[in-house]
Amino acid sequence: MTKNRLKLGIFGFGVVGTGLYQVLEETGSVAANVKKICIKHADKPRPIDKSYFTTDQNELLHDPEINAIVELINDAEAAFEIVSEAMKNGKAVVSANKKMIAEHLPELLALEEKYQVPFLYEASVCASIPIIRNLEEYYDNDLLTSVSGIFNGSTNFILTKMIDENASYPTVLKEAQQLGFAETDPTLDVEGIDPKYKLCIILFHAFGLVTKPEQIFNFGISRINEFDLTFALQRNYAIKLIARCNKQDDEITGFCAPTFIKKNDPLAHVKFEYNGVVLESAFSEHQLMIGKGAGSKPTGSAILSDISALTYDYKYENKKYSHVDKNLKLVNHGEYTVYVRYNDDFHNFNDFNEIIEQFSSPQGKYFIGKINLDTLFNSQWIKDAKVNIIFFNQV
Amino acid sequence: MTKNRLKLGIFGFGVVGTGLYQVLEETGSVAANVKKICIKHADKPRPIDKSYFTTDQNELLHDPEINAIVELINDAEAAFEIVSEAMKNGKAVVSANKKMIAEHLPELLALEEKYQVPFLYEASVCASIPIIRNLEEYYDNDLLTSVSGIFNGSTNFILTKMIDENASYPTVLKEAQQLGFAETDPTLDVEGIDPKYKLCIILFHAFGLVTKPEQIFNFGISRINEFDLTFALQRNYAIKLIARCNKQDDEITGFCAPTFIKKNDPLAHVKFEYNGVVLESAFSEHQLMIGKGAGSKPTGSAILSDISALTYDYKYENKKYSHVDKNLKLVNHGEYTVYVRYNDDFHNFNDFNEIIEQFSSPQGKYFIGKINLDTLFNSQWIKDAKVNIIFFNQV
Repeated sequence: MTKNRLKLGIFGFGVVGTGLYQVLEETGSVAANVKKICIKHADKPRPIDKSYFTTDQNELLHDPEINAIVELINDAEAAFEIVSEAMKNGKAVVSANKKMIAEHLPELLALEEKYQVPFLYEASVCASIPIIRNLEEYYDNDLLTSVSGIFNGSTNFILTKMIDENASYPTVLKEAQQLGFAETDPTLDVEGIDPKYKLCIILFHAFGLVTKPEQIFNFGISRINEFDLTFALQRNYAIKLIARCNKQDDEITGFCAPTFIKKNDPLAHVKFEYNGVVLESAFSEHQLMIGKGAGSKPTGSAILSDISALTYDYKYENKKYSHVDKNLKLVNHGEYTVYVRYNDDFHNFNDFNEIIEQFSSPQGKYFIGKINLDTLFNSQWIKDAKVNIIFFNQV
Repeated sequence: MTKNRLKLGIFGFGVVGTGLYQVLEETGSVAANVKKICIKHADKPRPIDKSYFTTDQNELLHDPEINAIVELINDAEAAFEIVSEAMKNGKAVVSANKKMIAEHLPELLALEEKYQVPFLYEASVCASIPIIRNLEEYYDNDLLTSVSGIFNGSTNFILTKMIDENASYPTVLKEAQQLGFAETDPTLDVEGIDPKYKLCIILFHAFGLVTKPEQIFNFGISRINEFDLTFALQRNYAIKLIARCNKQDDEITGFCAPTFIKKNDPLAHVKFEYNGVVLESAFSEHQLMIGKGAGSKPTGSAILSDISALTYDYKYENKKYSHVDKNLKLVNHGEYTVYVRYNDDFHNFNDFNEIIEQFSSPQGKYFIGKINLDTLFNSQWIKDAKVNIIFFNQV
């Protein structure tokens, strides 16, 4: 079989872009060369010849010789403009921008459809774990029932340290930031928004469902305190920020929340910056894929595989979406068992279908109750920073 | 995109075949129906209508309406005849027969080339783990450096019980046989031959190397005794039957042997009948895939995915093989660190480049030494049932 030779235009030249350039140019492993790199700051020192660089995006987007654009910038809206323009100009696109993809999925699908160019984004979900490709190519029948797991490396690093070293959230967050595992503004990670974006992308490739991030419940890890940790340690639980989606008939449930899991749960061994994805289907049993979920090399390897796939004319066929049952919808009416740490201001016990356990001491109060996800999603009390919730693993 | 509708002819109707029939006919999830099933014993009671069954293989192989053959029989030679005949008749083939594929790879490649029909066999390696598909489609550039792991569920079940419960090999083997996790004649599993067949298939899809099973060193777990177990337990090692292949430039090394691994090695958490595959490449970091490696459902799910792929005209492109460096070769000259339990009949210390540790007591004797794989492979003393060897993990 013959390979296409690619001429790449790259947007962004941070650690991922730099590593990618090195692998492409130094190993010759993939039939692709970098032609031009668009950057924001022209005068920053660069490790390669300055003739590669430009600050004018049109030099890439309107160069007929460049047949693929690799988009590696942070700003989701700017990225969407670049990706749209690239596709309109008939260029294949590789991106790692989960926020951009989750928020613009319908427009991106329309562009793919209209301009018939490949748009690949394996690096956007769990970096080095080839989850999108596996959902597209291997789990391509409708027997898949659930995808869940640890989709965010920063929070997994923080939670691992908190549980294994009984350390406080602020201390560990600081350490994670110093080590480069967490952003200066960690909101997207620690509030469970980043894994929710990834869940939106998974919902599309697993079940063909197009949904908006705001339709999906997310809760973060920033409120976990010593009292919650003690509860986890006493019962020998790990806490993981779990994103999960389940399909039953034509109903999909999805959410992202901190979750108690048993120490013998396979995901309990997924520690620090690693991610883990569990796939369940009607006929097979659990499959678990583990790999680094963040960092320049894991992200770079996924981008490289996408570039390599472009040389073989690969594109996502969006198989689930093209055969999707028109009745398929996202619902939030499932009942979940949730730990709630509260104080005297809390008066919303009636939101719960059942209270299973209740505990009160000078150190704090919690109860464990069953609640419908939509009740939780629409509740006001959940916005109170003095309340914390942690799910129990339903599996 | 349009799907082909498949009419299947199935050879063999054990638990896998039965489960497959149920999923195909009862869920309608995959655009395939079973037309005829070829069995050995006509008078065995069957759970479905007897009109499906025949003992005449030509009723399947020469039925022009049957466009895909699913081969699920044990006998590798008979399977090869069936698969060859099916391909000659222009039928796509799905098989789970690792022995047949490993032993007849060159002939099977020639048949695929000549008759241009898809031949898929995901279920032949690590059952539910989609390793072949990932090697073909995702790790399709030449940056992959190593594939290793636990490729055999029976022996992993036995070794898990031995280490976790400090139980003896014969006791656990018996239990595994009673539970259906080990064959009545367990030789292929416990001597490391079954995982070696799988390694041959992986060598082909990972690196494009066609090799014969007899060119690859294998050693089993049947000689592990209480003395060896004590050594492992004292040093807090697990023992796993690890198959491994590495590529460096145009040289490939591959072998299968019991191996001490540390308890924090990700493969140490892969227990009982689970399999685990670790992929390493130059640019990405370790990827780990875990799933059940044996049993009717895991095997059935892989076969089902292959059938589903056929409805989309999928075939292996054998990308590595078609671009393989003609100098690529299997070599056995690497040096490995090995534990050797021996007795007074052993006089072959000179085979070792270096002796690192030596121990002697009334209970037994061992040494740890460094040896070239080809020296080990060609040694006579390794055939002595009173000697046992266990590798140390080099990673």
